[in-house]
Amino acid sequence: MTKGRLEAFSDGVMAVLITIMVLELKPPHGTDWAAVEPLVPAFLTYVLSFVFLGIYWNNHHHLLHATQRINGAILWANLHLLFWLSLVPFITGWMGENQFAPLPTAAYGVVLLLSGVAFSILTRLILAAQGPDSPLKAAIGSDLKSRISMMLYVAAIPLAFVHRLIAAAIYVLVALIWLIPDRRIESRLNDVSL
Amino acid sequence: MTKGRLEAFSDGVMAVLITIMVLELKPPHGTDWAAVEPLVPAFLTYVLSFVFLGIYWNNHHHLLHATQRINGAILWANLHLLFWLSLVPFITGWMGENQFAPLPTAAYGVVLLLSGVAFSILTRLILAAQGPDSPLKAAIGSDLKSRISMMLYVAAIPLAFVHRLIAAAIYVLVALIWLIPDRRIESRLNDVSL
Amino acid sequence: MTKGRLEAFSDGVMAVLITIMVLELKPPHGTDWAAVEPLVPAFLTYVLSFVFLGIYWNNHHHLLHATQRINGAILWANLHLLFWLSLVPFITGWMGENQFAPLPTAAYGVVLLLSGVAFSILTRLILAAQGPDSPLKAAIGSDLKSRISMMLYVAAIPLAFVHRLIAAAIYVLVALIWLIPDRRIESRLNDVSL
Amino acid sequence: MTKGRLEAFSDGVMAVLITIMVLELKPPHGTDWAAVEPLVPAFLTYVLSFVFLGIYWNNHHHLLHATQRINGAILWANLHLLFWLSLVPFITGWMGENQFAPLPTAAYGVVLLLSGVAFSILTRLILAAQGPDSPLKAAIGSDLKSRISMMLYVAAIPLAFVHRLIAAAIYVLVALIWLIPDRRIESRLNDVSL
Repeated sequence: MTKGRLEAFSDGVMAVLITIMVLELKPPHGTDWAAVEPLVPAFLTYVLSFVFLGIYWNNHHHLLHATQRINGAILWANLHLLFWLSLVPFITGWMGENQFAPLPTAAYGVVLLLSGVAFSILTRLILAAQGPDSPLKAAIGSDLKSRISMMLYVAAIPLAFVHRLIAAAIYVLVALIWLIPDRRIESRLNDVSL
Repeated sequence: MTKGRLEAFSDGVMAVLITIMVLELKPPHGTDWAAVEPLVPAFLTYVLSFVFLGIYWNNHHHLLHATQRINGAILWANLHLLFWLSLVPFITGWMGENQFAPLPTAAYGVVLLLSGVAFSILTRLILAAQGPDSPLKAAIGSDLKSRISMMLYVAAIPLAFVHRLIAAAIYVLVALIWLIPDRRIESRLNDVSL
Repeated sequence: MTKGRLEAFSDGVMAVLITIMVLELKPPHGTDWAAVEPLVPAFLTYVLSFVFLGIYWNNHHHLLHATQRINGAILWANLHLLFWLSLVPFITGWMGENQFAPLPTAAYGVVLLLSGVAFSILTRLILAAQGPDSPLKAAIGSDLKSRISMMLYVAAIPLAFVHRLIAAAIYVLVALIWLIPDRRIESRLNDVSL
Repeated sequence: MTKGRLEAFSDGVMAVLITIMVLELKPPHGTDWAAVEPLVPAFLTYVLSFVFLGIYWNNHHHLLHATQRINGAILWANLHLLFWLSLVPFITGWMGENQFAPLPTAAYGVVLLLSGVAFSILTRLILAAQGPDSPLKAAIGSDLKSRISMMLYVAAIPLAFVHRLIAAAIYVLVALIWLIPDRRIESRLNDVSL
């Protein structure tokens, strides 16, 4: 199986996901400021989800870029990741329409957590397929960022029921952790691959 | 006609299909567990349809990968397959919103059956275009899985009117049959093609 | 400007168009045959539009395949074609929901006619850019099919107000004209290009 | 990071954006001319947004075409541009449904302005990454069109509250400025790149 078509399909799904999210942003019925105000949480949720999908596309790109061998298990692990990401527009719509109510806000964390777990599984299967000497293995190392992110999600899910803004703040924090470029991986990959 | 653009168009259509299905999952209006409960059958249907589209993408990928010659009939057979697959979001929405009522559940089986028939036609036309010595022909052989799947669909459609869960169980069974990787084909293809 | 990215963008737009049309097919609210019946004209319209978009993708593919030089005018002529095609889901939804009422049925013909005109303009600009000795010029010749199609659309638009089924029958006829493969072009192109 | 996948992802997002806009054009419920009339502003807005997205795709294509080096900052600047463009269907729906009411019409200008700013940032980051001798730098020069466009947007936003048609006329003017091909850039790029 060629890597190219796996990348193309994943790019396609992620491009559609990041775009159809806007369909959950319903244009307000009025045309004054009062009509726009209730849209503010939906818009902030939209920005957050856009950033998360951008981070996943970025990380997915880096991971696949340094991958040489693909097998059936990797294909299904990739579809598993796309499955959880495909729920992002749905969960974004639910959280955004309900002013960060506890249950939707916790559910948002669950989708992000399971997307993170799916990305970890994909990373492991790809590493296993590359063999012990793969430069990707050395570059990824202990995958500290992923571990921290997942611990933060696990904390945020119950905290959404304590106060909605605690969970929302944690999601923003995780996004910031990933927005800071991981120079360690990038520099190593630059050495070993195209 | 180049194979590349046929693959790219099919990938595009399948990536959009697997993604817009989420638009049939309407965010619940409430924010408590009671509001989420009626969504459970819609969610299970979504998972099932996601898996079916994933299987089709996977099989389509394998089939085209070993194809060397494309003609006009193959192009239209491919569009015919995409037509039936394009109905999956529609039928998923109908079955999911109606708690597996008999008629939508039977109709779901009809769409899967006709997608399967379309895939068989595409396979045959591709095999015919490759000539008698094609390694693809030896690899696919009697196409046992496809025959079993189609017999199961034919059984499930009337059984949906006996009890909705019998048909749903058969659809899950077909998905499981395909999720188990077909090592026979994969190993042969690995020998003969990139 | 590379031809590859023009093809990729056009494929993307056409793949999304052919797929989001299904969102205009609303799942019926009931689960019995009576609920399905009013959907029949919408479904037939969906099939017709799917075939038309398939024909356009096919013809676009053939046209670009034999094209060697692209310029800014070709790019905008291509966007102009995509614009009219982008109205197909809208007009399909309108005609399908209204049992082929005269005005939507005539409007459907207008969109098809203007898509046909846009395709002719694109063809002419591409031919002009290839120079007089282009094999594409010889292959396309007088472009008889396009002329006949456009005359049929021009006839169908007023006839929709006489009887809705006359116009619908003409649209089906045009689709059939194009479904029959144009062996003349295919065989000549096979001689001169990849 | 390969330029190819950045282009493919951007093409995918822009192809989906330009296509799902049509979903904001709701088919009228009636089938007579009276039912069509209120759709006219929505249709004109649709045409305008289609042209703007076409211009962005075109300019993006030219910019990336002459780019040789990509880095993490360019990737995020590109996602930033796609973010503002992703709001185009939303703002098109809002302005189109409300007959160019002042607030939506001003908001339309804000989205276009911020898309323009995002494109300028992307251009600068790409120029910085290419080094001082890049032919792209010479070709783009002072980027006069972008400056004029942004000044026009800044003027149009408050003018939407004076009279809606002033702002709308300015948006049409900006589109016309860009539709006139920039022969200066095209000719220089033709000399130096594929």
